[in-house]
Amino acid sequence: MNLKDKIEILGKMKSDLAGKDFLLTWEKSEKDLRIIIEVATILKEMRAQNISPRVFDSGLAISNFRDNSTRTRFSFASASNLLGLAVQDLDEEKSQIAHGETIRETANMISFMSDFIGIRDDIFLGEGNEYMREVGAALDEGFLKGVLPVRPGIVNLQCDMDHPTQSMADLMHLKEIFGSLENLRGRKIVMSWAYSPSYGKPLSVPQGIIALMSRFGMNIELAYPEGYELIPEIVEIANKNALQSGGSFSISHSMSDAMKDADIVYPKSWAPYNIMQQRTQLLITGDKTGLKELEKVCLANNAKFMDWEYNEAKMKVTRNQNALYMHCLPADISGVSCKQGEVSANAFEHYRIKTYQEAGFKPYVIAAMMFTNRFGNPAEALKSILDRNRKRVGL
Amino acid sequence: MNLKDKIEILGKMKSDLAGKDFLLTWEKSEKDLRIIIEVATILKEMRAQNISPRVFDSGLAISNFRDNSTRTRFSFASASNLLGLAVQDLDEEKSQIAHGETIRETANMISFMSDFIGIRDDIFLGEGNEYMREVGAALDEGFLKGVLPVRPGIVNLQCDMDHPTQSMADLMHLKEIFGSLENLRGRKIVMSWAYSPSYGKPLSVPQGIIALMSRFGMNIELAYPEGYELIPEIVEIANKNALQSGGSFSISHSMSDAMKDADIVYPKSWAPYNIMQQRTQLLITGDKTGLKELEKVCLANNAKFMDWEYNEAKMKVTRNQNALYMHCLPADISGVSCKQGEVSANAFEHYRIKTYQEAGFKPYVIAAMMFTNRFGNPAEALKSILDRNRKRVGL
Amino acid sequence: MNLKDKIEILGKMKSDLAGKDFLLTWEKSEKDLRIIIEVATILKEMRAQNISPRVFDSGLAISNFRDNSTRTRFSFASASNLLGLAVQDLDEEKSQIAHGETIRETANMISFMSDFIGIRDDIFLGEGNEYMREVGAALDEGFLKGVLPVRPGIVNLQCDMDHPTQSMADLMHLKEIFGSLENLRGRKIVMSWAYSPSYGKPLSVPQGIIALMSRFGMNIELAYPEGYELIPEIVEIANKNALQSGGSFSISHSMSDAMKDADIVYPKSWAPYNIMQQRTQLLITGDKTGLKELEKVCLANNAKFMDWEYNEAKMKVTRNQNALYMHCLPADISGVSCKQGEVSANAFEHYRIKTYQEAGFKPYVIAAMMFTNRFGNPAEALKSILDRNRKRVGL
Repeated sequence: MNLKDKIEILGKMKSDLAGKDFLLTWEKSEKDLRIIIEVATILKEMRAQNISPRVFDSGLAISNFRDNSTRTRFSFASASNLLGLAVQDLDEEKSQIAHGETIRETANMISFMSDFIGIRDDIFLGEGNEYMREVGAALDEGFLKGVLPVRPGIVNLQCDMDHPTQSMADLMHLKEIFGSLENLRGRKIVMSWAYSPSYGKPLSVPQGIIALMSRFGMNIELAYPEGYELIPEIVEIANKNALQSGGSFSISHSMSDAMKDADIVYPKSWAPYNIMQQRTQLLITGDKTGLKELEKVCLANNAKFMDWEYNEAKMKVTRNQNALYMHCLPADISGVSCKQGEVSANAFEHYRIKTYQEAGFKPYVIAAMMFTNRFGNPAEALKSILDRNRKRVGL
Repeated sequence: MNLKDKIEILGKMKSDLAGKDFLLTWEKSEKDLRIIIEVATILKEMRAQNISPRVFDSGLAISNFRDNSTRTRFSFASASNLLGLAVQDLDEEKSQIAHGETIRETANMISFMSDFIGIRDDIFLGEGNEYMREVGAALDEGFLKGVLPVRPGIVNLQCDMDHPTQSMADLMHLKEIFGSLENLRGRKIVMSWAYSPSYGKPLSVPQGIIALMSRFGMNIELAYPEGYELIPEIVEIANKNALQSGGSFSISHSMSDAMKDADIVYPKSWAPYNIMQQRTQLLITGDKTGLKELEKVCLANNAKFMDWEYNEAKMKVTRNQNALYMHCLPADISGVSCKQGEVSANAFEHYRIKTYQEAGFKPYVIAAMMFTNRFGNPAEALKSILDRNRKRVGL
Repeated sequence: MNLKDKIEILGKMKSDLAGKDFLLTWEKSEKDLRIIIEVATILKEMRAQNISPRVFDSGLAISNFRDNSTRTRFSFASASNLLGLAVQDLDEEKSQIAHGETIRETANMISFMSDFIGIRDDIFLGEGNEYMREVGAALDEGFLKGVLPVRPGIVNLQCDMDHPTQSMADLMHLKEIFGSLENLRGRKIVMSWAYSPSYGKPLSVPQGIIALMSRFGMNIELAYPEGYELIPEIVEIANKNALQSGGSFSISHSMSDAMKDADIVYPKSWAPYNIMQQRTQLLITGDKTGLKELEKVCLANNAKFMDWEYNEAKMKVTRNQNALYMHCLPADISGVSCKQGEVSANAFEHYRIKTYQEAGFKPYVIAAMMFTNRFGNPAEALKSILDRNRKRVGL
């Protein structure tokens, strides 16, 4: 289908995304999620065809990373740049931002000429998403009271609850692999815990995956060793979503069993929910001895489940011995990035390039979130871009 | 008044700002200061109306912060971006720049494609402004001798003597609140020291305020506990300015008394001039014990003046019990950002949003400084922007 | 000669640079080197005439510095900005990139919307250039397998073997000084070791100079105290180049003798090749005691050659007592940046401004490398820019 036709089909869906932050996929209607996927697909194809979708002549996109990151940082920078925005880092070591009054003030101070703020805050359980909402409320006030000429949109670049730019990129990848969102209906996807020699990995990816994929009629199996629970409220959301969308949702405790007849597998380590709660408390109180102690206990516990490695033996029991392997990267690859990890080198190599492609959707998902925040009728705006026909590179 | 009319009025003033650095407000004529305020006002309104005033297709704006900063950093980035320049940080930890030969060389090395260098250097008394002039002299030489295709303009983003982007933003704020610069004539503004639990706060804000506001026929009262003097030469400049502009200038030593019938109050902590001199010496010699000692003495001294807090009792004696409260932010707010500080939470809350608005003028002031540095006839250039009618966002 | 004529002459040379990385000058044909010099000259003149050569509406240029740098960092940022690309730093402290699997993955993760990656990696002998090739191979794979929409070009911003953006800028400088590349034929250039109170300075500049200047019929004299050898393979390349181009190449061990009748002198310190090999091993094994020991031995050895300072006495024996002095900067200037160094203050001052001009070619050389990577027919693209006639600054 050519771009014009895609845009025309998009035009039949009415977007409710304009002026709204993107914080959690489960706050968005299925239609709005589809719109983002479509806009992202169109932007990706435009760039591939050397059509520049630049819509900002100037403007800033603030990058607020309260945690390290390479790929999400670059994805945000790429998306911003594609649309014409310059990235400005809010480096907290340099600028000391915090909660309360400080948030309210800083949010306004950085936003006089900002169009978007991308935030990553996934260290403290119960904090990251709340922080984003505090920033949002401060921006609302600032805009309402004439401090800000524009209400900057917030894009959640990972929090304690969800990682929507990741899960949406993953969904886009699935759409591409299986041909359409409709084709995902009835597919079995296994979101499985996997062994890792590190500890404290965030819950946002598995939570984001089960909460989003359950919207499209898939059969979700969440597998983990007993004790490695996710946030119960989000598991409940996934469960409800699955029921509503005509799919299913189940929890199991054997990786090998879970993989049976899977169409898609997503083996990835995470820390148990209650451990993350304890860790959050220790981090808040600055209890370094406690943190070391907890790490020791956790790693010892992890070590009981070293057989939770995705490998060719487990691949064999999947659909056609060939389930699509997914990962948000970087994966802990046995014998490559660690001695023993989430996935065997062989199993990973089968899908290495596909995981790169999976990651490649993220910049466009972010760009689509920005685009639909600004343009109430994205199809119309995209059509204007097509008509303008400005080259991204060249004369 | 619409943009076209504002530009026409601006066109009647002949600018002498082209090609000159902006280092101290007292080096500029009143007319040139008015031009900057007008250009900033027009740029702000253009952006609000989604008109892009971008005038650079490419070019760098170098951001050289020798001290931490969030709001000025973002203001500089915003202004640069609005006009089409990309910000490039000169990070001294990474690049080791210093005085003498090194300044001369580095100034040229970073400027082959630079249009502006924004410098913040307010730590050492007697150093910051001098450093900027050293950079300026190096750029003059480089341009004269064909090293640089363009002489980059320097914008003082705070030095030991002045903080012109702050004071000019404050002036713009006053103009907006009181309707015109003419309406400031005869108003009483109190620049008052206030208690803070920290020490070593720069003198540039109070100095900048008294030296600038005294140009416009206002009655300046500078209030501080005895011993908390500013740089005498700058106080003298303020005094002379006041006489020339038909206003007045006085110094007093009671915050409560000073506030009587004030139209505008600016309560803000600073370190005494002679302490800053001692501190500079200790910093230069790297005398850590001496610095600790000095801090102790200062904090003890500060603590004698904890009643120098601006609060509702003090508000009550101001004009209509309602003087405009100003601050460069962040303020030390009692019970919020510290136990006891410059301003009570209640008093601050009355004007919190207004202080945000005050800060919101800074990016436009910086943009206007850049704009008038490049365009000898700013009105003509602004008219061309209006005629071009390019959208900042949209198609 | 005007721009149009220059472009026409350029149009007669067929470029083979499109789509290829620029890693070592000796991998490029003489014709391709000439094309880069011509394109850089034209871009420089365009900017001087306020013609914007921007050819990217959006796109990223990744800056990957594995070593500190101010001037090359700014040169890369300037070149990227001139063509319309936004710089995104890959900060390894933040992002932990390494060899093997990690390179392969990271190279793709940062490149979804990248057009160029500039890499500086000159610390480990035998590593820097290899690292760039590893990145290149990863990008080839990513592009081939549909991960990347564009194969980003790599620009070597200094490695263990060559520093091509420096040597090409130096060549451009020589062309400007002597009027043409043809006029360099038969000139004597002395690449000489010089004393420095520091140790471990990279070999890439002297290697880059002898390997490049030997392509243009010059008489190269490489002078150093015995024991301060460069990488033998690269010396051999310079030797062969000189023979082929009708110049000459010789090695000598007295700075004073070498300077006799020199047209051009390039006195610069470097560490001996075998010391760099030992140092690399110690760095790899993390042997801090060994490194300290080695430094001590080296500095003691350097100190035997403190008379290897370029000064007015040595100037006197050069052609017309006035050889062109070159340096990549910063130079170790006796009595200025150190007690005793590579060059006396007097000798340096004669050519200080010229060394700034020399450095000023680097941004354009980098821009030309990028430009010719993207446009198979650079003359045609430059002609379109001329016809488009877009201003860099102004309306």
